[in-house]
Amino acid sequence: MNDEELIPDVLADRYASAAMAAIWSPTGKVKAERRLWVAVLEAQRDLGIEVPEGAVEAYRDAIEEVSLDSIRERERVTRHDVKARIEEFCALAGHEHIHKGMTSRDLTENIEQLQILQSLRLVRRKLAAVVCALGRQAEAHAELIMVGRSHNVAAQATSLGKRFANCGEEAWAALERMDGLLRRYRLRGLKGPVGTQQDQLDLFLGDAHKVRALEQRLAEHLGFSAAMASVGQVYPRSLDYDVVSALVQASSAPANLARTIRLMAGHDLISEGFQAGQVGSSAMPGKRNARTSERICGLAAVVQGYADMMAALVGDQWNEGDVSCSVVRRVALPGAFLALDGQLEATLVVLKELVVSEEAIAAELAANLPALTATRMLMASVAAGAGREEAHRIVSEHVLRGEGFFAAVAQDERLPITPVTVERIKSEILVLAGAAPAQSRAFARRAQQLAEQHPDAARYQPEPIL
Amino acid sequence: MNDEELIPDVLADRYASAAMAAIWSPTGKVKAERRLWVAVLEAQRDLGIEVPEGAVEAYRDAIEEVSLDSIRERERVTRHDVKARIEEFCALAGHEHIHKGMTSRDLTENIEQLQILQSLRLVRRKLAAVVCALGRQAEAHAELIMVGRSHNVAAQATSLGKRFANCGEEAWAALERMDGLLRRYRLRGLKGPVGTQQDQLDLFLGDAHKVRALEQRLAEHLGFSAAMASVGQVYPRSLDYDVVSALVQASSAPANLARTIRLMAGHDLISEGFQAGQVGSSAMPGKRNARTSERICGLAAVVQGYADMMAALVGDQWNEGDVSCSVVRRVALPGAFLALDGQLEATLVVLKELVVSEEAIAAELAANLPALTATRMLMASVAAGAGREEAHRIVSEHVLRGEGFFAAVAQDERLPITPVTVERIKSEILVLAGAAPAQSRAFARRAQQLAEQHPDAARYQPEPIL
Amino acid sequence: MNDEELIPDVLADRYASAAMAAIWSPTGKVKAERRLWVAVLEAQRDLGIEVPEGAVEAYRDAIEEVSLDSIRERERVTRHDVKARIEEFCALAGHEHIHKGMTSRDLTENIEQLQILQSLRLVRRKLAAVVCALGRQAEAHAELIMVGRSHNVAAQATSLGKRFANCGEEAWAALERMDGLLRRYRLRGLKGPVGTQQDQLDLFLGDAHKVRALEQRLAEHLGFSAAMASVGQVYPRSLDYDVVSALVQASSAPANLARTIRLMAGHDLISEGFQAGQVGSSAMPGKRNARTSERICGLAAVVQGYADMMAALVGDQWNEGDVSCSVVRRVALPGAFLALDGQLEATLVVLKELVVSEEAIAAELAANLPALTATRMLMASVAAGAGREEAHRIVSEHVLRGEGFFAAVAQDERLPITPVTVERIKSEILVLAGAAPAQSRAFARRAQQLAEQHPDAARYQPEPIL
Amino acid sequence: MNDEELIPDVLADRYASAAMAAIWSPTGKVKAERRLWVAVLEAQRDLGIEVPEGAVEAYRDAIEEVSLDSIRERERVTRHDVKARIEEFCALAGHEHIHKGMTSRDLTENIEQLQILQSLRLVRRKLAAVVCALGRQAEAHAELIMVGRSHNVAAQATSLGKRFANCGEEAWAALERMDGLLRRYRLRGLKGPVGTQQDQLDLFLGDAHKVRALEQRLAEHLGFSAAMASVGQVYPRSLDYDVVSALVQASSAPANLARTIRLMAGHDLISEGFQAGQVGSSAMPGKRNARTSERICGLAAVVQGYADMMAALVGDQWNEGDVSCSVVRRVALPGAFLALDGQLEATLVVLKELVVSEEAIAAELAANLPALTATRMLMASVAAGAGREEAHRIVSEHVLRGEGFFAAVAQDERLPITPVTVERIKSEILVLAGAAPAQSRAFARRAQQLAEQHPDAARYQPEPIL
Repeated sequence: MNDEELIPDVLADRYASAAMAAIWSPTGKVKAERRLWVAVLEAQRDLGIEVPEGAVEAYRDAIEEVSLDSIRERERVTRHDVKARIEEFCALAGHEHIHKGMTSRDLTENIEQLQILQSLRLVRRKLAAVVCALGRQAEAHAELIMVGRSHNVAAQATSLGKRFANCGEEAWAALERMDGLLRRYRLRGLKGPVGTQQDQLDLFLGDAHKVRALEQRLAEHLGFSAAMASVGQVYPRSLDYDVVSALVQASSAPANLARTIRLMAGHDLISEGFQAGQVGSSAMPGKRNARTSERICGLAAVVQGYADMMAALVGDQWNEGDVSCSVVRRVALPGAFLALDGQLEATLVVLKELVVSEEAIAAELAANLPALTATRMLMASVAAGAGREEAHRIVSEHVLRGEGFFAAVAQDERLPITPVTVERIKSEILVLAGAAPAQSRAFARRAQQLAEQHPDAARYQPEPIL
Repeated sequence: MNDEELIPDVLADRYASAAMAAIWSPTGKVKAERRLWVAVLEAQRDLGIEVPEGAVEAYRDAIEEVSLDSIRERERVTRHDVKARIEEFCALAGHEHIHKGMTSRDLTENIEQLQILQSLRLVRRKLAAVVCALGRQAEAHAELIMVGRSHNVAAQATSLGKRFANCGEEAWAALERMDGLLRRYRLRGLKGPVGTQQDQLDLFLGDAHKVRALEQRLAEHLGFSAAMASVGQVYPRSLDYDVVSALVQASSAPANLARTIRLMAGHDLISEGFQAGQVGSSAMPGKRNARTSERICGLAAVVQGYADMMAALVGDQWNEGDVSCSVVRRVALPGAFLALDGQLEATLVVLKELVVSEEAIAAELAANLPALTATRMLMASVAAGAGREEAHRIVSEHVLRGEGFFAAVAQDERLPITPVTVERIKSEILVLAGAAPAQSRAFARRAQQLAEQHPDAARYQPEPIL
Repeated sequence: MNDEELIPDVLADRYASAAMAAIWSPTGKVKAERRLWVAVLEAQRDLGIEVPEGAVEAYRDAIEEVSLDSIRERERVTRHDVKARIEEFCALAGHEHIHKGMTSRDLTENIEQLQILQSLRLVRRKLAAVVCALGRQAEAHAELIMVGRSHNVAAQATSLGKRFANCGEEAWAALERMDGLLRRYRLRGLKGPVGTQQDQLDLFLGDAHKVRALEQRLAEHLGFSAAMASVGQVYPRSLDYDVVSALVQASSAPANLARTIRLMAGHDLISEGFQAGQVGSSAMPGKRNARTSERICGLAAVVQGYADMMAALVGDQWNEGDVSCSVVRRVALPGAFLALDGQLEATLVVLKELVVSEEAIAAELAANLPALTATRMLMASVAAGAGREEAHRIVSEHVLRGEGFFAAVAQDERLPITPVTVERIKSEILVLAGAAPAQSRAFARRAQQLAEQHPDAARYQPEPIL
Repeated sequence: MNDEELIPDVLADRYASAAMAAIWSPTGKVKAERRLWVAVLEAQRDLGIEVPEGAVEAYRDAIEEVSLDSIRERERVTRHDVKARIEEFCALAGHEHIHKGMTSRDLTENIEQLQILQSLRLVRRKLAAVVCALGRQAEAHAELIMVGRSHNVAAQATSLGKRFANCGEEAWAALERMDGLLRRYRLRGLKGPVGTQQDQLDLFLGDAHKVRALEQRLAEHLGFSAAMASVGQVYPRSLDYDVVSALVQASSAPANLARTIRLMAGHDLISEGFQAGQVGSSAMPGKRNARTSERICGLAAVVQGYADMMAALVGDQWNEGDVSCSVVRRVALPGAFLALDGQLEATLVVLKELVVSEEAIAAELAANLPALTATRMLMASVAAGAGREEAHRIVSEHVLRGEGFFAAVAQDERLPITPVTVERIKSEILVLAGAAPAQSRAFARRAQQLAEQHPDAARYQPEPIL
């Protein structure tokens, strides 16, 4: 392939972190596979299978010697990717002893699960970092009262801190789900072409204990605590869907945050800030765009698209299951992880760099005070004896008229509410926000506890972004 | 709406159980809402809010008097569905005291979560019933050896019991996820228009303890143990996605089972059986179709489509969140539950009625014995000293030639394998299936334990299906 | 099914028009099927098949006598829906002559295509009505200059008319696609259980001409001009995807319009208006929500979810194709049409009722003049000899500083631009909008031409909405 | 980025053709952009804008000098990708004159549309090649009678040729849609940051004619015949959905073909053939898998996932539209084209290499003759005077009994059918297939006509696949 035709994976290239890319790079995968083969070979030898002197060592020495081109050349002949990688490794080692009693999926299922497990742990750490950062922002802005909106129009007051706390609560739920998933996540293990372990049983002359011991060794090598009991050629693909749908869920709080930042940017309430040298637009000087927030929203759509690819495998496994899904998983599994990783990285950057305009927030609040206090005027009227529905109608009329709202409410004889009460309500800005400050701080405290339990997550710093 | 235009919900009408339909029927929802209003009103009264003598009782007496037409008439004027239902209920009771300090979503979010919780428990029970039924089939057919397939062609032997066990293992994982979800599922609670509880705080003159007590009363009324802390107008929609993606996952094992039954039916190995009077085709007499299995696969696609609708809400919440998602949730939440419910019902019917043809299974096994024993021939050759890759090539040649395989292998001098060994391998049918019988029985035991823990699930009988 | 369990289709019940509901109602479908059977029977008789005297008439007389309950009762026994409907119709007519040489799909495929064709024509008309309404708004507001935004922040001036024209251009493209689809849309025809027409050939003693004539009669009866040539039991489901993906495309312009209205509502620039009696919020008096616009966006997500269900059928047809897709199409085909129909109805309502605040638009424009003129300042500098990149940097600095922009630009010696030029640019508001007025009017003219070609579409009035 | 982290795009790397990869490679895109800039600059000069002597030439000379690393370095500072590419190109040329009056999207929208147009033409050609190949197979096997199936069980006879013709009919419909799309496909053109062309108007001192002329020159340079009239910053994203949903549709016939090949392979009726050196399984010698067919199905799911990403942009454009969708389109547009391209390549390989087992087909037909002739027995009975429903019941009974079907039917006195008729029906194998041979040949003729119109498509040879 010449340069003109080379297309790097755009998610790995532009958005994801180096750590995530390393998990899914072809070279890294070849090495992980070779380590698995050597671990199995060594375990087989320890369990009594004859292996020539020096073979294990010869394979081990060849692990790092990866030539993707040479493997590709072999695959063109065999039309079978795993067979090509076996032959390459054997040629390098000068032996033919790996992959004994194994089928392709004994290799690839387990290595892919290893990649998934490592990736889940990585995004779990970053999602926890997002929760911590949201906690810090919730604390910092707990009492910065602002216009809360429903249907995108002013509804009641809230605080900016609470907006971060809301997103934090959502991210927390995603974290809980991911933790539950990690606890449940089991290895397929060495099960053979249709899941019956027949080849390994054969190799060990029917000794089921040795087969279990071998599988146990493999699980330990890969860092899993348990293996599945009854699977076919492959593990059920709904387990992959369990994983990617957790990623979709994890992408939601960042995307909601980013979308709201984009909306606030439209009112000049907040911006992502400018880095030295940054350019807002190639045409329009001085434009300050919520560019990274847009990317965060976009990456959520990308994660979802990959989840849809994986959903296509749900319930579409034939007989013992097979690898008709190969191309789908090759695309969608790294895709989903790289996209979410990039999204969480971008979210951490935004949470670090965002700039709040307290003046603009205050100005907006002042302009919307009639609408924001309308419910309290209604409640005060009800408390003073008015029928709820009748008071609702009258207050509505005054709000719609806008100008002169406070005077009108104070003077309307149908509302049993005094001018003093109207003035009091108008001045109690903090009261307007109800429990918002308290909720913000409560969330900040929970986030602080998480930070203490996971100091590595709390201090995680995103990579510089494009 | 005249009869010509009346369209019943097709999932409720044709596929779902009466129990699930009752949860989502408009009439049922109106009553649940009214019960919530009365519970809140009563709690408010107990916490010191003045409520006129007889009001609670008047409302309570009006709960069952539901006229959807009258509500619809009101909505045409208000263009606001909740307002219409408030006015109807107030008119029936002759009071204006419900919904005090509440916003629409204080009603609807909580009622919808109640519907979700009830529905989750219902499908959870049926999924457990599926696991139990799979366990019984795994036990019954643990040693019924058959051709296992990969890429849809004969690969190695397995047992029919193991096919059920494989699906069972997948269903089990979905059950575990659903249990985790149920443990984590929290109520939104009474949070007001932007989540700050400002109106309730106002109603209780700023007494946060009373507001908490009120929310606690509501949670108890609805059967929840905990409420969320910081939300906006609505709870994060990624929590709905958490729910529906769990439904997608739950639909996978039934769909995989059904797909494999359809494949087996193509080889006449299994059929869904005929009920008295059933007709296979309106044109072709005697056709015996895997009709319910097709439905099971189709319903999985339907659940996924609804999940896609819910995914569209992930990360698309503006500001405090709002109800722009109203129509989506009205369609997709009941849709997903009704579809999964119908799928699980159909799965239970199939598991109850299926008919296995042991003769056809045996005949297929005999015809594929060369291919099925090929790996054992290879392993035996390797065990006797042959190089793995070389032996692989030779055995392949003989399999491809088909006819006369056993003789050819026995006589090929390049393979260090004796005619006696060839005969032994050929006769050890049970050995060919490796751990399949043991895996089947192991799963059956786990299913039996589940049945003992959940006797109601174990004895659940599906409704008759169309 | 008792009342508690009755669930009407929510889309038909709340959102879609009566005309669309009538196409998809079960009663309507049963009648359409019976008309098809009678048409086929009559044609068979005319082509020489013996049919007893009075049979055609007896069937014809029974067409309107539809009892869904009785059909349902029969289906419980046959477990085959078409067989149940045949038996019911035969029992009513007292004959056994319909459905001769036909298989179920000879009935249902063709009737469903009839429903699709009628529905396509109906939404086509409404989409054209939307284009016409957009044309009227584009004309009306062609010179109402306003802040144009990119990344949701002020970018350059545009006109409100152009916003309608942009949506109109998009709707136009969807209309073109729908027209192309309607031109290409062919009937499956009478093809038999696996598409070979074997039964009809048999019935006509191998006379292929008569079989073709029969199919031609059917096509005419249903209003199609051509039938497909080689299909299996069913027509390729990618043709359904062709249809529903056209519906997704049609939903886009309305949703983009609605989303932008929701954004504008957040700046008080536009509102949907209030109808007499309408209530904005059950809690907050005086709230004026872009409630219908939210619904429009939500319905777009619903259409997409149904399209995803249909996409699951793409490439999943086995052998001659079969009806494993039955439940999916039962749900998704009416669902997609009812949702789009409801969306277009809602869009027409919004376009009719929306209220523009010219004052708010003018105020926003004034506040953003520095940013909006920045590009012209840059261009003027370049025209006066400045290097583009250098000028870009300098103007950016001044915009970011905000306050005093015009003076700063006029005085900055690095920019070869005179105070007179600055003043001129500042005052040429219409120039700032570039071709926006012209583009608006050009679109309005095209829409006017469409209205003249399709007067029925142009004068279509939406039904009142909930 | 070191080697360990480098991830090539897996679709470009493993599945797509070199021609498609070249369209979407980063290097290729940079060059296309530079050519566009030079074309615009030259046109601007020709239309009277002052451009220094030698500037056009300096830029032109720098076009091929692409360093992605250097551009990336610049983007790290500007955080704006287009600005980085402008600066790089200007630095190489030693001028600051390109991109005058343009905004980023004036560059990128048009270049991306160029990539889309080129890609559409490429896949269009390959889809036509698939139709031609299907035509050849339909012709070759027009009279190879085989078991046709519905619900995956034997239904009626068909011919293998007809299976290809059915897929061909579906592919043809996708081709028609793609042709319609190509006819409608218009360029966005030079419209500026919010679509008003204000900057170009400014540059040309308000001369709308010159602006139109410039846009015309650009359209010609890119090979488009028309430009859109009224757009915002970007063209409506539903046009991208129009494109990718056409790709989904195009993927359907290949996937249906492949799925059916996988099913036939399960009955040993067909195989993909073995290439020299190919290996079926790394564990099971002699396995002959429908490996490429599985890939074809998998790639259809991948195309759909990318379409879902694009669908997320439908109706989600804010105001004038913006590039929040940037990351989604970067991933999904090349992804969808590369996946479909790979799928069509694989389909052409399968159609070239497949091996049909006429013996297996004949054996299966013989075994299913009772069921296959059942309908004819029914029809013959009806023709001889039996009531249809009664005869249906009796023939059904005999089919279900299986063994001895023909004798039983001949002897059953309730059926007015003679032994001679039974024998005749049994022997008329070709009659059983009805119009299948004729339909196959009719399709083959249409495909032949297409081949004559598009000789380049007809003779297209797929690249060797992995």
